[in-house]
Amino acid sequence: MDGRGRALLVPHGPIVNYRMREIGVGLLGLGNVGAGVVRLLEENAKAIEARLGAKLVIRGAAVRDLGKERRAEIDSSLLCDDPMELATREGIDIVCELIGGEELARELVLAAIGANKQVVTANKALLAVHGEELYASAESNGVDLYYEAAVCGGIPIIRALREGLASDRIESIAGIVNGTSNFITCAMAQGGQSFEEVLATAQAEGYAEADPTLDIGGGDAAHKLAILAMLCFGTRVELDDIHVEGIETLAEIDYAMAKQHGYVIKSLAMGVRREMGIELRVHPAMVPQSWLLADVPDTKNAVYVRSYALGPSMYYGAGAGMMPTAMSVVSDLIEVGRNLGANATGSMPLRIQRDLPATAVIPMAQLRSHYYLRFTVADLPGTLGKLTTILGQHQVSIANLSQTVMPGDDEHEQVAVVARTHEALEEHVQSALQAIAGAGLLLAPTQLIRIAS
Amino acid sequence: MDGRGRALLVPHGPIVNYRMREIGVGLLGLGNVGAGVVRLLEENAKAIEARLGAKLVIRGAAVRDLGKERRAEIDSSLLCDDPMELATREGIDIVCELIGGEELARELVLAAIGANKQVVTANKALLAVHGEELYASAESNGVDLYYEAAVCGGIPIIRALREGLASDRIESIAGIVNGTSNFITCAMAQGGQSFEEVLATAQAEGYAEADPTLDIGGGDAAHKLAILAMLCFGTRVELDDIHVEGIETLAEIDYAMAKQHGYVIKSLAMGVRREMGIELRVHPAMVPQSWLLADVPDTKNAVYVRSYALGPSMYYGAGAGMMPTAMSVVSDLIEVGRNLGANATGSMPLRIQRDLPATAVIPMAQLRSHYYLRFTVADLPGTLGKLTTILGQHQVSIANLSQTVMPGDDEHEQVAVVARTHEALEEHVQSALQAIAGAGLLLAPTQLIRIAS
Repeated sequence: MDGRGRALLVPHGPIVNYRMREIGVGLLGLGNVGAGVVRLLEENAKAIEARLGAKLVIRGAAVRDLGKERRAEIDSSLLCDDPMELATREGIDIVCELIGGEELARELVLAAIGANKQVVTANKALLAVHGEELYASAESNGVDLYYEAAVCGGIPIIRALREGLASDRIESIAGIVNGTSNFITCAMAQGGQSFEEVLATAQAEGYAEADPTLDIGGGDAAHKLAILAMLCFGTRVELDDIHVEGIETLAEIDYAMAKQHGYVIKSLAMGVRREMGIELRVHPAMVPQSWLLADVPDTKNAVYVRSYALGPSMYYGAGAGMMPTAMSVVSDLIEVGRNLGANATGSMPLRIQRDLPATAVIPMAQLRSHYYLRFTVADLPGTLGKLTTILGQHQVSIANLSQTVMPGDDEHEQVAVVARTHEALEEHVQSALQAIAGAGLLLAPTQLIRIAS
Repeated sequence: MDGRGRALLVPHGPIVNYRMREIGVGLLGLGNVGAGVVRLLEENAKAIEARLGAKLVIRGAAVRDLGKERRAEIDSSLLCDDPMELATREGIDIVCELIGGEELARELVLAAIGANKQVVTANKALLAVHGEELYASAESNGVDLYYEAAVCGGIPIIRALREGLASDRIESIAGIVNGTSNFITCAMAQGGQSFEEVLATAQAEGYAEADPTLDIGGGDAAHKLAILAMLCFGTRVELDDIHVEGIETLAEIDYAMAKQHGYVIKSLAMGVRREMGIELRVHPAMVPQSWLLADVPDTKNAVYVRSYALGPSMYYGAGAGMMPTAMSVVSDLIEVGRNLGANATGSMPLRIQRDLPATAVIPMAQLRSHYYLRFTVADLPGTLGKLTTILGQHQVSIANLSQTVMPGDDEHEQVAVVARTHEALEEHVQSALQAIAGAGLLLAPTQLIRIAS
C-alpha cells in the first residue's frame, strides 16, 4: 500500500513511520558472494532493519548472461545485463561491486561515484591496483567507499585497523591472508604427502582454483597486503613494491625440519615499520609453535598486529567463502546505510594520514632476519666444510647445522644440509647462496625460509 | 591567534582552514587510563588529526584531589574538582567518563547527555548495571555513547560485534575476559604452585588487586558478559541472570588432570543462543588444547564468536592496562569526533533489535554439558562402586574414570576420583552431587568443572 492510500485511511494527525525508509541497493555481479548477499538480506531482514532503522532493498542485479541458472534467490525482473546503467540508475543508493577484475570494475565504481552513489566492494585487486584513484574520487565526491570484504573475507580487519586502532601507531602486521596456502601448509605439516598431492586434494575440495597461481604464488596475499599497509602505515603501496614468494617450492622435508626445530611453516603477508621505511613482503615463514598464528587451521585467516599502545592483537576467522564474504558486504551496507540516514556519507577519511610524507619501502636486500637454509648436496667428505666456509665469508653466522638423508633417497647419494642462521642481512645471505651455487656443490636449488620473530 | 587577528593579515579572498577545527574533550577522572589518554592524544596528535580532520583538545580534567601528584602530563590550569560542572560545561563536546564506580558515574553521564554532550566511557560496571537507562537517554537526546574500552580493554570487540558482524546472527560467544584470572590459570597449569602462591605472585606483579574478589570470583567477567550479550543477542541482561563461579576453588590436581585429558582450564564468559533462550554463565571450563582459546597467554584476553554466516571468529589482545585501554578510549573519541563533524551523532542504534521480544535466560539447571568431577574420598574398598552407582541413578553417565592419590598425601589416606561424564543435564549432576555428599563418602567438597564444546 502506498503512502497516499494510507493517508486516506488515517486522515487526522501526523503520519509517522507508516513505512520504513528504504535504501536501494544495486548488485553488480551475482555469483557466489552476490547470492550470499541476497540470502543474508532476506534471512536477517528483521534484525538488519532494527540495527539500521531502514530497509535495504535490492533494486537491481547486473549479470553477464540473463539466461543462466543462478544460485541467488532473486526475482528475475530485477536482473539486467547492463552494469553501467545499474551503477548510475536512479533509485540506487548503494552500488555493491561484486563483479571482480580490475578494468570494468574500475569504470563502474568511478561511474557510480560520479553519479553520487555510495559504493561497497569486495574487490581486492581493484583496490590494490586502483585504490588511490578510487579513494580520491570518493573523497572529492563526498561518498562512502567501503571494502571490508576485500581483505580476509568475514574478518572485520578493516574496521579494526581503521576505527578500532585509529588512535594507535601500528608497528607491524603479520597475516595469514590466503586460505588456499594455509590449507596446503597445514596439510603438508601433517606429513606423508607431496605438494602436488596436497594441491590436488585442495582443488578437489574446492579450496584451490584450477589455476592456483594467484593463491599459492602469493599474488593474492600481496593484493591484501597492499590494502592493509595503506591502512596501517598511511602510505600508498605499489604492488611492485611488495616482495612476493609462493609456497610451491617447499618440500615435505622443510615441514618436517620446521617441526623438529619448534616451528610451523605458514605463508605470511608482512608489513613492518622501521626507522628507514616499511618492509612489505609475502613469503613462507617459520613461525614459532608457541605463536597463535601457528595454530591457524585449514583455510582460516588471521592477522596479527603489533601496535604502540595496544601491543599485540589478533583477528581470526574465515577469510573467504560465500557467506563469510557476504556477511562483510552486508555489514558494510548497514554502515553505509546508517551514514545515508544521518546525511554523513563521505565522513570516513579514505586516505588516512595523507599529509604525511610518503614512506619509503625498504629493499629486500636490507632485511635482517634469521634464516632456515636447506642445501641439497652429494654425500661427500668436505662438502659441509665448503658450505660453511662460504657462509662465513659472507658474514652469515650459523646457529645450528644438521645433515639428513633426503626421504626417498634409498641409495643415500644426496643429503640435505639444513642450517639455521643467526640474524643476518638478506643481501649477505643471497650472495652467499650465489657463491655456493657457483661452487658446484649443489644437486638441487637451495631452499631459503625466513624465520619469523 | 584568533580568527579576527588573521582576518586583518589576510584581507582578500576566503579564509579557509586557517585553523583546524577543535573538539573539546572533558576528562572525568585522571587515573592510569586518563593519563594514557593524555599521552596518546599528545604523542599521536598529528596522525589523529589526519584521521579525524579535527583536533581533539582536552579542555578540562576533573580530579578528586587537586593537590595530588599525578602521572598525567597535563597543564594544572586544566584541572578542576567539580566533575558535574565539567560534565556540563560549555566548550566541552565530548565527556570522557573515567571515574569508575556506578552511582556518581551514572549521574555525571546522565547530566552530560542532558547537556547534549557526547559521551565516551570505559566503565563496564556502569553499563552492566545502568546501561539500559543510559542507552535510552543517549538515544532520545540524539547523542553518542561509545564504550569500546569498557570490555576487554584494547581489543576492538565492541566494534567487531556492533559493526563488523552487524549483518550476522551470533550463535555463541566464549571469552577470556578477565586478565587476572587468565594469569592465574596459566600459572597454575605450569604446576608446582598452589592457588595462594600464584595469587600472591599476581598481586606482587600488579596483575591482581589487593582485594582480588571481583576478578577471581568472576564478577568482573559477568559485567563484561552483560554488555557483550546485549550486543550479541539484542537483549537486556540483568547481572543476576548470569551464573557466576570463580577460579578460587580449583586445585593443582585439577590443572594436572586437565592436561592429562587434553584440556586447559580457563575462566570463560559464555553466552549461547538456544531455541528456548540464552545461556549466560561465567565459570572455569576445560578447554580442548586444540582450541585457539587454550593458547591465550598470561593476562591477555580473547573472545571467540560463532555466528551464522561467518562461522567462528576470534578477537585477541590486551584486555586491560593503561595504554591499551586508553587506546580504545581515544579511538572512540576519534569516531565520535567524526560523527560531530558530520552532524551525525546519535546515529548508532544503542539498543539494537530492541523491538524483538526479550529473550529468556535459560536456568543453569537446564544446561547440557560434559562434566569433570573430582571427588575426594577415603581410600576404602567399595567407595568407587557407591559413587558410580549414585551417578548412574541420577542419569549421569560416565565416559572415563580414574583414581589418583592426592599430591602431598604421603599416607595415601585419601584419593581423588576423577570422572569425565557424557553429556548430562546440570540439574541431574547437581542432585547426584548432593546425594553423594549426603552419603558420607566425601573428605572434601567435590570439584565440578564444565567441559567446553
